[in-house]
Amino acid sequence: MERAMVIVGRKKAIRYVTACITLFNRGEREIVLRARGRNIENCVRTVMLLKKGFYSELKIRDIAIGSDIVKGRGRRYVSYMEIVIER
Amino acid sequence: MERAMVIVGRKKAIRYVTACITLFNRGEREIVLRARGRNIENCVRTVMLLKKGFYSELKIRDIAIGSDIVKGRGRRYVSYMEIVIER
Repeated sequence: MERAMVIVGRKKAIRYVTACITLFNRGEREIVLRARGRNIENCVRTVMLLKKGFYSELKIRDIAIGSDIVKGRGRRYVSYMEIVIER
Repeated sequence: MERAMVIVGRKKAIRYVTACITLFNRGEREIVLRARGRNIENCVRTVMLLKKGFYSELKIRDIAIGSDIVKGRGRRYVSYMEIVIER
């Protein structure tokens, strides 16, 4: 089964909170939130907002970090973070 | 036993990499890296740099996220991240 994923970008965290709530309401139990570079902070903020504001029982199942290779001019490493949350 | 801690701020990641190498060379086996807010990205980058450039066997023992209350004008929540690495 594929897990629902939310890519966290640079919009306000509440936008990603809403996306997660929609997925949970559709019956998803687990959601993967993924962000790269400067958006990593936003990813953490999204999870904390979800936990504080909407699902006090929210479980953080896993947190992973790593780096992606981005090809532009030459190759560049961008760090990423993935947080798996469970309702 | 208290664990060595490196607070990751907004200096270049290589500065925190150097701090970790110094601690490892002094005999520490585990180091906790901690960052808040926009510095969280820098914390992830520091760990990836350490792993890619210096300790290919580096283990990420634990990653935790949460939020701190910062008192300034009123109260504000700032998300934080702690990564425990082992040489």
